[in-house]
Amino acid sequence: MKEFTLAPDPHHAGLSRDVDGIDQDGNQTTISVVTEQPLTLYLNGQEILTMMTIGDYPELLAVGYLLNQHMLLEDDEITAIEHDEDISTIVVRTKRKTDYEEKLKKKTQTSGCAQGTVFGDIMEEFETISLNPDALVKTSWLYQLQKKINTVPSLYLKAGAIHGCVLCQHDKPLVYVEDVGRHNAVDKIAGYMFLNKISPHDKLFYTTGRLTSEMVIKTAKMGIPILASRSGFTAWGVDLAKQVGMTLIGRLRGKRFTILAGKERVEFDLTGNK
Amino acid sequence: MKEFTLAPDPHHAGLSRDVDGIDQDGNQTTISVVTEQPLTLYLNGQEILTMMTIGDYPELLAVGYLLNQHMLLEDDEITAIEHDEDISTIVVRTKRKTDYEEKLKKKTQTSGCAQGTVFGDIMEEFETISLNPDALVKTSWLYQLQKKINTVPSLYLKAGAIHGCVLCQHDKPLVYVEDVGRHNAVDKIAGYMFLNKISPHDKLFYTTGRLTSEMVIKTAKMGIPILASRSGFTAWGVDLAKQVGMTLIGRLRGKRFTILAGKERVEFDLTGNK
Repeated sequence: MKEFTLAPDPHHAGLSRDVDGIDQDGNQTTISVVTEQPLTLYLNGQEILTMMTIGDYPELLAVGYLLNQHMLLEDDEITAIEHDEDISTIVVRTKRKTDYEEKLKKKTQTSGCAQGTVFGDIMEEFETISLNPDALVKTSWLYQLQKKINTVPSLYLKAGAIHGCVLCQHDKPLVYVEDVGRHNAVDKIAGYMFLNKISPHDKLFYTTGRLTSEMVIKTAKMGIPILASRSGFTAWGVDLAKQVGMTLIGRLRGKRFTILAGKERVEFDLTGNK
Repeated sequence: MKEFTLAPDPHHAGLSRDVDGIDQDGNQTTISVVTEQPLTLYLNGQEILTMMTIGDYPELLAVGYLLNQHMLLEDDEITAIEHDEDISTIVVRTKRKTDYEEKLKKKTQTSGCAQGTVFGDIMEEFETISLNPDALVKTSWLYQLQKKINTVPSLYLKAGAIHGCVLCQHDKPLVYVEDVGRHNAVDKIAGYMFLNKISPHDKLFYTTGRLTSEMVIKTAKMGIPILASRSGFTAWGVDLAKQVGMTLIGRLRGKRFTILAGKERVEFDLTGNK
């Protein structure tokens, strides 16, 4: 796969908008702001939920969300994905008959978790996950990745106020997506990997967001052994990474970072060369 | 009210934890990381949801959440708040009998919105909100507020990876709370204002998070006319602020900021004095 097979398109109409305002001295100014719009997701005949999203790659978001909620299974066959922009809906159809009424009810009680995610069943599956112990990340790759990600055109550079997630292999950023909610960006990557049958075992997941329990759980569920972020950690995120054997790298800025789990996958090829 | 009547207590046991790790050169390092823990909320006999929180001020979080979900009404009388740390539960009891089974069901379909919030009814009430047109914010106050907020001891300074919200009056930060989720921090402020009968009409709400639709809706619901953030905007946040007549100030860092709505409440008392 080549670098940035999928990358943000900051010039895509509808993802951001110019808004007139006033600066600190009272002068007129115009800035770009990202949009957020509702997208209602159906699985076969059933309404699942309404997501707020910037609106690009709705198919990836829909499939990734369903995967991460265990409503779409690894061996499911998707027969159609129908996106209707006019009425802001997306329908995913599968060969398997689905009915998640009970699950949707259960969600009521847990959906306040951090980012509106159902943790119940995900935690159950978490116990069974095994991540590739031989995956490797070199210090030099981390710096290369940062440089490439931070300089490629993005809505973040254009408008700010947005989260980004990048699926990487060695020093190559492969798939870079953005969204107003970090959980949406993660789901888009999961959707891309499923639809394009991408192997997770030699990959690194880069996120602009914090390394929370939710991020670690979703990355583990995707089977990716290394998770890196320019942001910090939460304690539960660290505990879960240790439990599942994930390499967790945070506060990655410039030539600095901190590893709080899985250091055996990191090769310090730049040490003494700061 | 005096400055920082309520402020973060970064030394409080349980809010953060020292974790051993490795730095970019392969050397041992130890950093503080914030904790996140489940808290299950009941209103009278009914389980409402489980929240992930750093764990301080559970009473404020519980009351604020219920208020922002319209499950607790402005004229409700709270007869008891029972927090049981051992089993991670908090029960809010009211004189009025409550039953939100229907509402909890409805939530199923909308809870993916940005931060797990029910937008349905909140948008209905939004139309009826009127914010004090005479509230004022001076440029000099904004700089004072930032300076005070950024230098007071906090979990943000100690451990990072956390959101902060501050209720302010003129150049005084009054109530400063933090939490792993921005929505929790907002709810804590709402809970504080309700329990302490704080008038919103001359207040400014400062947040470290982005100025999204959710932030504008919650700030409006609290009746606060001015919302400021060091982060950026989303388009829908700006639209809603204009609709409800809120002053929206973003990208507030150092001596710079941008106003995208309600500029008539801003007095540029430092212009020419950069």
